[in-house]
Amino acid sequence: MSRRSTPLLLVNTGHGKGKSSSSFGVLNRAWHQGWRCGVYQFVKSGKWKIGERVAAETLSASEVGGTIDWFSVGDGWTWTSRDLEESADLAREGWEEVKRRIADETYDFLLLDEFTYPMTFGWVDTAEVIEVLRTRPGHQHVFITGRDAPAELVELADLVSEVTKVKHPFDAGIKAQPGIEW
Amino acid sequence: MSRRSTPLLLVNTGHGKGKSSSSFGVLNRAWHQGWRCGVYQFVKSGKWKIGERVAAETLSASEVGGTIDWFSVGDGWTWTSRDLEESADLAREGWEEVKRRIADETYDFLLLDEFTYPMTFGWVDTAEVIEVLRTRPGHQHVFITGRDAPAELVELADLVSEVTKVKHPFDAGIKAQPGIEW
Repeated sequence: MSRRSTPLLLVNTGHGKGKSSSSFGVLNRAWHQGWRCGVYQFVKSGKWKIGERVAAETLSASEVGGTIDWFSVGDGWTWTSRDLEESADLAREGWEEVKRRIADETYDFLLLDEFTYPMTFGWVDTAEVIEVLRTRPGHQHVFITGRDAPAELVELADLVSEVTKVKHPFDAGIKAQPGIEW
Repeated sequence: MSRRSTPLLLVNTGHGKGKSSSSFGVLNRAWHQGWRCGVYQFVKSGKWKIGERVAAETLSASEVGGTIDWFSVGDGWTWTSRDLEESADLAREGWEEVKRRIADETYDFLLLDEFTYPMTFGWVDTAEVIEVLRTRPGHQHVFITGRDAPAELVELADLVSEVTKVKHPFDAGIKAQPGIEW
C-alpha cells in the first residue's frame, strides 16, 4: 500500500438503486490492487447479492488480484422480519467482529454493506461506530452502504454519494429478475 | 434466459460518483447468470477502470459464470482532448458496432459505459439510439451510464438512478488513488 495514499471512508446512501452495486464495483478495483478485502453483508435474504458473492469468490480464488472474504452477518431478516430482537443481536455480533478486524488491521478494504440500518435502527451505537472508524489504525479503506446514512457518518466520511430513484421497473409492474436484481 | 423476464433498459446518470461502478456491480450479477455480456467503454483514459476490466476478464476466463467481452471505444479522449473530431469519429464507430451487435443479438447484457456523452455532444444521433433500443430484438438487457442522460433516454428507460455528490475527497484536497478511483 502506497504511503502517499489516504485511507478513505466512503458512503453510498439515498433511496435509489445502485448503492451496493456501486460498492461492489469499487471492490473489484480494490481486489485488482492486490488488497485484502473483507465484505460484511448486514442484510441477507434469499438470492440477494448471490451474483456478487459468487463473483467475489471467483475473483478471490483466481489469484490474479487480492483476496476477498465474504461474511453474511444477517440471518435473512427483512423489513417484515418478525424476530427483530434476534436480528438486532446478529447485527451487534457482526459489528463486534468488524471492530476486531479493524483493530487487527485484517483488511486493506472493508465493505460494510447495508450497515446504515443497524445504526438507524439503534441496534449498534452510531457514536461508537464513528469513534472506531475515526481512530482506526493503519491504512484501512472503509465503504459503507445503505439508506439514511446518519449525519455523523456523513460528517466523518471522505466521499458521500446519494442515489435517488428517477424511475423504477417495479412502478411499471415489472417484477424483480435474476441477473439484474441479484 | 427465462421467457418470463423482461428485457430492461437501465440508466445511471447524475453528477455523483458511482454510476459506472454500480453498472459493473450489475455486470457481476449478469455474469453469474451465465449470460453473454458485452461492455463498450465510451470513455477511456489511462488507468481508468483497469480494475474493473481485469476483474471482468478474470470472471470471464473462470468459466464459473457467463462471458464478458470488453471493448474500449474511445481513444483516451478526455475533457481536455484537443482532437475532438477524432473522438467523435471513434464514438460513432463504437455506436455502429453496438448497433450491429444489437441486431445480431450477440449479447444478453450490454453495458454502454459513459454512452450519454456521445449523445449529449451530438456525436451520435439520440433519436436513432432511442429507436434502435426501443425496437431491439429478442431479450437484450442494456445498461447505459453517464452524466446528463437525454430526456428521451430517461423516458424510454425502465430503471433510472441518479447519483448526486454529497461530498468528495477532491474537495478536501485528497488526490485520486488506485483501488478507489480506478
